[in-house]
Amino acid sequence: MKIAILGYGVVGSGAYEILKRYGYEVKWVLDIRPHDELGSVLTSNYDDILNDKEVSVVAEAIGGLEPAHTFVVKALKAGKHVVSSNKHLICQYYEELHTLARENGVSIRFTSSVGGGIPWLYNLRRSVRCDEISKVMGIMNGTTNFILDAMITDSRDFDEVLKEAQALGYAEANPSADIDGLDVARKTAISASVAFNTIIKEENVSVFSMRTIQKCDIDYICKNLGTVRYMGFGIKNGDSVSTFVEPTILPLSAPESTVCKNFNMITLFGKSVGRLSFFGQGAGKYPTGNALAQDIIDVVSGCSYTQDTPIELTVDNHKVERAYYIRTKAQIEGDIVAKCEKINGNNHIITKKMSVKDIHTLSCAILVSDSSSFFAGIEE
Amino acid sequence: MKIAILGYGVVGSGAYEILKRYGYEVKWVLDIRPHDELGSVLTSNYDDILNDKEVSVVAEAIGGLEPAHTFVVKALKAGKHVVSSNKHLICQYYEELHTLARENGVSIRFTSSVGGGIPWLYNLRRSVRCDEISKVMGIMNGTTNFILDAMITDSRDFDEVLKEAQALGYAEANPSADIDGLDVARKTAISASVAFNTIIKEENVSVFSMRTIQKCDIDYICKNLGTVRYMGFGIKNGDSVSTFVEPTILPLSAPESTVCKNFNMITLFGKSVGRLSFFGQGAGKYPTGNALAQDIIDVVSGCSYTQDTPIELTVDNHKVERAYYIRTKAQIEGDIVAKCEKINGNNHIITKKMSVKDIHTLSCAILVSDSSSFFAGIEE
Repeated sequence: MKIAILGYGVVGSGAYEILKRYGYEVKWVLDIRPHDELGSVLTSNYDDILNDKEVSVVAEAIGGLEPAHTFVVKALKAGKHVVSSNKHLICQYYEELHTLARENGVSIRFTSSVGGGIPWLYNLRRSVRCDEISKVMGIMNGTTNFILDAMITDSRDFDEVLKEAQALGYAEANPSADIDGLDVARKTAISASVAFNTIIKEENVSVFSMRTIQKCDIDYICKNLGTVRYMGFGIKNGDSVSTFVEPTILPLSAPESTVCKNFNMITLFGKSVGRLSFFGQGAGKYPTGNALAQDIIDVVSGCSYTQDTPIELTVDNHKVERAYYIRTKAQIEGDIVAKCEKINGNNHIITKKMSVKDIHTLSCAILVSDSSSFFAGIEE
Repeated sequence: MKIAILGYGVVGSGAYEILKRYGYEVKWVLDIRPHDELGSVLTSNYDDILNDKEVSVVAEAIGGLEPAHTFVVKALKAGKHVVSSNKHLICQYYEELHTLARENGVSIRFTSSVGGGIPWLYNLRRSVRCDEISKVMGIMNGTTNFILDAMITDSRDFDEVLKEAQALGYAEANPSADIDGLDVARKTAISASVAFNTIIKEENVSVFSMRTIQKCDIDYICKNLGTVRYMGFGIKNGDSVSTFVEPTILPLSAPESTVCKNFNMITLFGKSVGRLSFFGQGAGKYPTGNALAQDIIDVVSGCSYTQDTPIELTVDNHKVERAYYIRTKAQIEGDIVAKCEKINGNNHIITKKMSVKDIHTLSCAILVSDSSSFFAGIEE
């Protein structure tokens, strides 16, 4: 079984080096940029790979939707297994790609699209085959964890830490995908799709941004409640699923409270296995390259799990309730408020338990009054 | 591929129920006790299984050395794959069983022998195939973690918590295998053998018991240093390995500090993947039954990793150095002492960095002077 890697960027080159070091032959690398060290392995013409009958595994590490989507669809239709580290692609085309894989009797694997080096999706899929998963949750974004950890540990302002993260290459020049939750929403959608054998789209995931967090929130949370992390959740309730991304307040006894810097921790709850948590580096050339290589090796070894025919589940965020922390200058109606402390012109509110649906609806009105308002779920 | 389970105890029955629920046929269960619910699946005669050509996977959940060892050897020689949850067996006969598996072209799998429901060994083996592991470490025993957690959280005495653990079934009437470290030593030996592709025997693992821990140690550690857990370590140094089990003092920022009650957390450090930690229930009918079932399903699906021909490494505990906490009434020579505080007739000592070998040698003399002395490594 010969391997082709599409894209010789950070992740693709990491996987290539690891595979080569451990004796797995990569026959082709597709990239439009020159890479002399690759010699004749490098091609800029995808047809060289598509038409090569020896190539049975195509590993996509280009990123973005096109041409990745076109290349992957062609590979599946040509009866080639596909491995990808591309969460945008996998999330956007989850149903199509799985259907094509099933129809063509090949595997599609994407462990490295969520959690970097952590073999999260692989173990999740392995759990699903003989257990009933009720919940998945986790810290899935290293950038936002780095920011929160620095704010908490060193008592620093959000803007200052964000600048540092950008200088260190931990955050993009436009950090929106990280701090406004799209990255975590995609990873949550993919994780929930695997966990519950269904199709969750990114637009099904309710999201609170964390860009409005301030030092006064950290001070209040650390003094009164515990700590805070940016987390995604997928929770099964009978025939429906709740999926959401929120800054989440946790007690100091929670395993997530020790997740520092760029690390991730992602968790499943299974009926027989109980809680399983997976912790490691959520990004980076060698961690993510390693995860991509692992999926490739599994396929080459003839071992792979693909999704069974998915079942249809509705997404209903009414069914999960928790208390919320809101910091706002706006006035909040009394009947949802359990506790309110006014500090320096801000209302620091703990709500009574309310549904994820209701708080996300309410937040829109609150943000109209005060666009700097901050919202966090409280996990017991 | 038909399955046979040897032993219908806690773990065997857990695995049986899970396999049956998910459509995997168990053709035989071996047990000498009556289990009416099993009908004709039950046999007390191992030859029924050994001579059945349809049976290609034998899952051993009897425990202890014999007859488990005899049954497993016969299965391997008969060309049957073997799965086991029996750490004593796997540790004692690691080399023999792996050689027989290789010679007969079959797999031997034992994920459920370490870490209960956590897919630790499975992921460790998967990591080894394309990464270089430098260290494994972890909380691998639920009983001792339960005891330490209760002592720390509720400020209780060791004897009182041990009694409660025994009443709850978390500790045996004779708790020695847990509190004197044999259980963790075996799990450490197995983990190091997999991590470094070598053979580590239980007698190669240097062990500090935790039976001498007292409330005054918890008070001192929590006030000055962090927290304490009972942990096993396997560390690679060139051509040698260090393996040891010790009460270990950790900062509160360490992920292990949140491991409460019966949970386990086990960690690998890989050159490309970095740190990966796996957290979950370290024991129990359904967690461990699930892990046993998972290994069986892997084998039945044609997916398994077995060990490459092992390399020979010496065990040398001179090569790892750390500082130690010693609480003793004995007088300790000044040149290893960094700090000493005398409280209520006890010397609470922090040593300078010293090798694992040296502290274990020294501890023997100290325990002669004061058999209630307590020793803990300090992990930075």
